[in-house]
Amino acid sequence: CHSARPSLFSTASGFDDYRGFLNLCVVLLVISNARVFLENILKYGILVDPLQWLSAVLYNPYQWPNLLLVLGSSVFIFIAFHIERFLARNYITANTGVTLHTLNLLVVILTQPTKLLPTRPSRTTKLIKNSTLSQLGLYVVVFLKLWSYAQTNKWYREGYTKALSKRRIHRTSKEFLSRGLVDYYPYNLSYRNLLYFMAAPTLCYEANYPRTSGINKSYLMRRALEILFLFQLELALIQQWVVPVLQKAILPIHNYEGYTIMERLLKLSVPNHFIWLVFFYFFFHSVLNALAEVMKFADREFYRDWWNAETIVYFWQAWNIPVHKWCVRHCYKPLLSIGCPKFAAQVSVFLLSAFFHEYLVSIPLHMFKAWAFFGMTMQVRLVQCGFFRFLVIWVSKRFSSNYGNMIVWMSLILGQPVAILAYVYHYYVTSYTTIA
Amino acid sequence: CHSARPSLFSTASGFDDYRGFLNLCVVLLVISNARVFLENILKYGILVDPLQWLSAVLYNPYQWPNLLLVLGSSVFIFIAFHIERFLARNYITANTGVTLHTLNLLVVILTQPTKLLPTRPSRTTKLIKNSTLSQLGLYVVVFLKLWSYAQTNKWYREGYTKALSKRRIHRTSKEFLSRGLVDYYPYNLSYRNLLYFMAAPTLCYEANYPRTSGINKSYLMRRALEILFLFQLELALIQQWVVPVLQKAILPIHNYEGYTIMERLLKLSVPNHFIWLVFFYFFFHSVLNALAEVMKFADREFYRDWWNAETIVYFWQAWNIPVHKWCVRHCYKPLLSIGCPKFAAQVSVFLLSAFFHEYLVSIPLHMFKAWAFFGMTMQVRLVQCGFFRFLVIWVSKRFSSNYGNMIVWMSLILGQPVAILAYVYHYYVTSYTTIA
Repeated sequence: CHSARPSLFSTASGFDDYRGFLNLCVVLLVISNARVFLENILKYGILVDPLQWLSAVLYNPYQWPNLLLVLGSSVFIFIAFHIERFLARNYITANTGVTLHTLNLLVVILTQPTKLLPTRPSRTTKLIKNSTLSQLGLYVVVFLKLWSYAQTNKWYREGYTKALSKRRIHRTSKEFLSRGLVDYYPYNLSYRNLLYFMAAPTLCYEANYPRTSGINKSYLMRRALEILFLFQLELALIQQWVVPVLQKAILPIHNYEGYTIMERLLKLSVPNHFIWLVFFYFFFHSVLNALAEVMKFADREFYRDWWNAETIVYFWQAWNIPVHKWCVRHCYKPLLSIGCPKFAAQVSVFLLSAFFHEYLVSIPLHMFKAWAFFGMTMQVRLVQCGFFRFLVIWVSKRFSSNYGNMIVWMSLILGQPVAILAYVYHYYVTSYTTIA
Repeated sequence: CHSARPSLFSTASGFDDYRGFLNLCVVLLVISNARVFLENILKYGILVDPLQWLSAVLYNPYQWPNLLLVLGSSVFIFIAFHIERFLARNYITANTGVTLHTLNLLVVILTQPTKLLPTRPSRTTKLIKNSTLSQLGLYVVVFLKLWSYAQTNKWYREGYTKALSKRRIHRTSKEFLSRGLVDYYPYNLSYRNLLYFMAAPTLCYEANYPRTSGINKSYLMRRALEILFLFQLELALIQQWVVPVLQKAILPIHNYEGYTIMERLLKLSVPNHFIWLVFFYFFFHSVLNALAEVMKFADREFYRDWWNAETIVYFWQAWNIPVHKWCVRHCYKPLLSIGCPKFAAQVSVFLLSAFFHEYLVSIPLHMFKAWAFFGMTMQVRLVQCGFFRFLVIWVSKRFSSNYGNMIVWMSLILGQPVAILAYVYHYYVTSYTTIA
């Protein structure tokens, strides 16, 4: 009945199978959040209004000019295309081409903040001054794509010129066309090719992309259903869960009630993170895959396994592959190739990234004065790059790699709500001051 | 730059390394509960009073008779010992021995509920009527140990008589003693041997236990520190986290507010489960191992890996090994050996277990009328044994074994708070009615 043996928790037993406790964590998480959900419904009732976004778009006349601006972005695409055509036909020199492209890109990116300049209030300026996040996002995407288009075609042109001078290209253009090799420079410079690039789910231009043989309709249908469902889910979560928390956070911040602010922050962090996760799946899996399926675009690597990231750096390299690829190909590597030191190139990429983050947040909120956050973003990146990176690497090596992963999650979950609370508070304060 | 490849979430990628999300669950759990903790402190302030238990014991004169009752339990041990001595010396017959043991055990277990009988209120009855959980627990342990002592010695005696009749025992008692075999029947019937059994961390009597060679002082010290710390932690958690939730749950139950009750239930479930986990470690690891170390008792299997349990049945077999061993050795197997069918034996064990659960809960709360809960406990056990067991087995086979484990956790986390809320509500209602 009895025999000498140690308890399982004693190290002498050598027992280490605690996988059941991981299941406990999952179950506790579901139960805790079911409670928070129930408490929320009991406190605020049903706040979800699935058609709010529709009425917001339809009945707000200030939104319509944005649609015109979206359509207007095709002008810049047209200009970039013809600069390349002129360059290919040697109508203009390479330097003139760079200047023209730079001017074009500056117009794309800098016309938006001018809406923030103080002007006499008139109906027209008021119309133009409103920018929505999605319209701004589109302009940023157009900017990045046209940059890539110009730079890649420059590389192609240089290669083509070199090959010509070495007389390695002896075939006539007719031969090229008969072989169907229309996608080699300069035959890639067609409207069809550029429009495909503008619509394809990538920011890096190539004359030739890997393509799928056809459209898988059931796959496309599943992605489309995901898009519809997750979009409504996101709206519902924001309306029901985030807005009440934010509204109740303004006063404590104003009165500097430290613990209450912290409580609000933690309360915000869980739904915010959940919304971010859903958004990630919605955009990087459903939307981009649906788009790729329609475009028969075969490179579906829109994200890597950032959820297993053991360092912040790997997370930033893995969660948004289109932007990461663009940064490496069109900013980091060119800087290295002109002899820029590695660290300076990294800092430049971070600065550019911080600039676009600030750009996308400040303009819709009309808070371009918020240089503090611009600085903060930069600082955070630099710390992540330097001190924080070493901390995480040290922790990962000292303990299990799981701890590094947990630190990454922690910084993700807690970092965003800090920024959101700061922005929302300043937005409320400035709006209130303007009105009063 | 681009190559044809599927997204990781697509099944075509064959990617299935999502261990990072488990870390996310752990981090989210910590953050959610940090928030609840902070909210609790902000709402109620610090409710923890580490010396409350001391003042409760010292300044409540009704507690002292319980100490006398604890000391008085040695009378029953003395009686049981001498019944065995008389049996060994053939002063009384086996049947008389069984009758005397039964009477002794009935007195042990049935004197406690008599305190609940309606009597004229006098100082003496009031003193005796108060029973604390720990004193009752001690009586239950004494009951189980003496049962085991009587039954095991009966088996020993039968084996001894058989051996004597076959003349296999030809050595004199002096030979036995010289060889140091004092622990074989009838030489195990000594005060020293019985007192060791009464103090040892087991409910199953054996003449000989596996022993350790000495006391590991640093091990004992660590267990002692754990006991001190975890005891205070348990008190603090109950005072700060559970009591406010319970107090706010009475009114919704009284008014039958379904959703609010459910919210209270979920709010209670997390701290309750945490307290249960801490209690498990406190009692089954720290206390029992410390006791075993002091007693040089080598069998430390006080629990198995119930946290990996994939069925409720395995959980009940693994979380409390002393009681489980006792049930199997002194109830289930004897019933089988007298020809009782397997199912009836299982039901008997469940009935006995349900009886002692009810016993330990009802008497301290003075609610012995609560037969409903007695029935409920039984029913739950039977369902677990029958339908629920098949459900869990089916789920485990259909999905991964993790789902069975999650169902076990779920039933653990949610089952206890239901019972606690029911008891607390009825306790409040009956107390209130009595006072009014």
